[in-house]
Amino acid sequence: MKIALFNDHQVGVVVGEKIYDVSDIVEWDHTDPQASLVKFMEDYGHLKSKIEANLDSCPSRPLEEVALRAPVPNPGKIVAAPVNYLLHQEEMNAALTVDRLGFFLKAPSSIIGPNEKVLLPFRDRRIDHEAEIAFVIGKKAKDVKAEDAPNYIFGYLALMDITVRGKEDRPWRKSFDTFTPIGPWIVTGDEIGNPNEVQLKLWVNDELRQNANTRDLIYDCYKFLEAASSVMTLLPGDIVTTGTPEGVGPITEGDTVRIQIERIGEFSVQVEYKPGV
Amino acid sequence: MKIALFNDHQVGVVVGEKIYDVSDIVEWDHTDPQASLVKFMEDYGHLKSKIEANLDSCPSRPLEEVALRAPVPNPGKIVAAPVNYLLHQEEMNAALTVDRLGFFLKAPSSIIGPNEKVLLPFRDRRIDHEAEIAFVIGKKAKDVKAEDAPNYIFGYLALMDITVRGKEDRPWRKSFDTFTPIGPWIVTGDEIGNPNEVQLKLWVNDELRQNANTRDLIYDCYKFLEAASSVMTLLPGDIVTTGTPEGVGPITEGDTVRIQIERIGEFSVQVEYKPGV
Repeated sequence: MKIALFNDHQVGVVVGEKIYDVSDIVEWDHTDPQASLVKFMEDYGHLKSKIEANLDSCPSRPLEEVALRAPVPNPGKIVAAPVNYLLHQEEMNAALTVDRLGFFLKAPSSIIGPNEKVLLPFRDRRIDHEAEIAFVIGKKAKDVKAEDAPNYIFGYLALMDITVRGKEDRPWRKSFDTFTPIGPWIVTGDEIGNPNEVQLKLWVNDELRQNANTRDLIYDCYKFLEAASSVMTLLPGDIVTTGTPEGVGPITEGDTVRIQIERIGEFSVQVEYKPGV
Repeated sequence: MKIALFNDHQVGVVVGEKIYDVSDIVEWDHTDPQASLVKFMEDYGHLKSKIEANLDSCPSRPLEEVALRAPVPNPGKIVAAPVNYLLHQEEMNAALTVDRLGFFLKAPSSIIGPNEKVLLPFRDRRIDHEAEIAFVIGKKAKDVKAEDAPNYIFGYLALMDITVRGKEDRPWRKSFDTFTPIGPWIVTGDEIGNPNEVQLKLWVNDELRQNANTRDLIYDCYKFLEAASSVMTLLPGDIVTTGTPEGVGPITEGDTVRIQIERIGEFSVQVEYKPGV
């Protein structure tokens, strides 16, 4: 199932080119979409069949007529894998990879949704796109083994980890407001199949910059959940993102950045300078 | 005013050795103490006089008879200053300081309250105490100048930034569950006076390990708020912590770690190994 937030943070289910507003069925409170999402995930076991049985009677609209919102609007944390593809390690001349670096955190306040704008804070520093497959935690997870990880992942989404290059700690370089575009929706774990074998692409304007497969992850989705949950408790609604493959490069004013992940979907964002920069 | 959470996450005001339960006056929902705290801070302007006028009629108990809880139970983020005292830079042989490193983030899930236990995840790695003055954001803050910072800070607290030494990114080394003891309460900005001139001490058992003054901060509380809010939006309930002075050192099973900050107060935590380690 593809679960999207749209317009005034209602919740919808996407089927083909249509979105069905299921807010009433799931008793969604659009004034607190993050809490509603956590409740939705907890109840998904019985909500799934209820939604499927009643979908035809829900109000529907063509997808192109709604504004999609960030599908996880306010996670408790964003846990991210540093240097998790070997070819990206090579292009960055990075000495260490995820197994030695652990993880870093991005500020939840950096999240934006599809069709929003990335605002660049500097004219004189390199700021890069990084395309990543991410997932949202559905169930409290501590010391979870990789083989049990699917039970704790509610679904998957596409994530851009926008990054200033330089000497600062990663959380600083990656937590500027607007630096975490996510979307286009959450594809539930029961629909995606194996997340560790999907193609991941990113274009800047019409140029294909990143094109890789998650089978080349050093720590795949499940193993990275194991690693993160060995340190700390992952809570429902947390986002975990797995790191970017090779092909990262700078973005600048006027660019349109588009990410596409097989079996998830695609979305794009515009790039501008932050006002006053 | 000293605002404490205690027992079943009720809210109290501490005066001398007594705590007054003000939950009814401020319409506190103890089932969601973080949301209640955010609402409390928003309404503090008029709640303050209401509390003062009615304090004598509130139920009170000796402080020693209640269990204090983490005064900010679930912040949206914990923003932390790396290498923010020169003598700490020296002891760590750190090449760079806060002005070049920016900030890092700690996981909110690492928070514990006074009298809880720090659980060490390793027997074969050095794990240190770091004593810090921290503050809680009272009002949405973006691009705030240092001179305006006091308007955005609700109050101050003591924070231990427990840290594994090693090559991993700081968020990994500092986000283990139980690695952020905070307390003993929030001292509001209108009570503390100048936070950039208070003495900060930490003992392990009876040994005084850290003893410094916040006047030696490289970026003081206000300047660090300016730096962090130039990157990202700080939201009510976020914690900002300013980094540790010299004197950090290892802790081990059986230790009692006590932090004391002038005009704030003190609390202590016990140290154990995590079960199974």
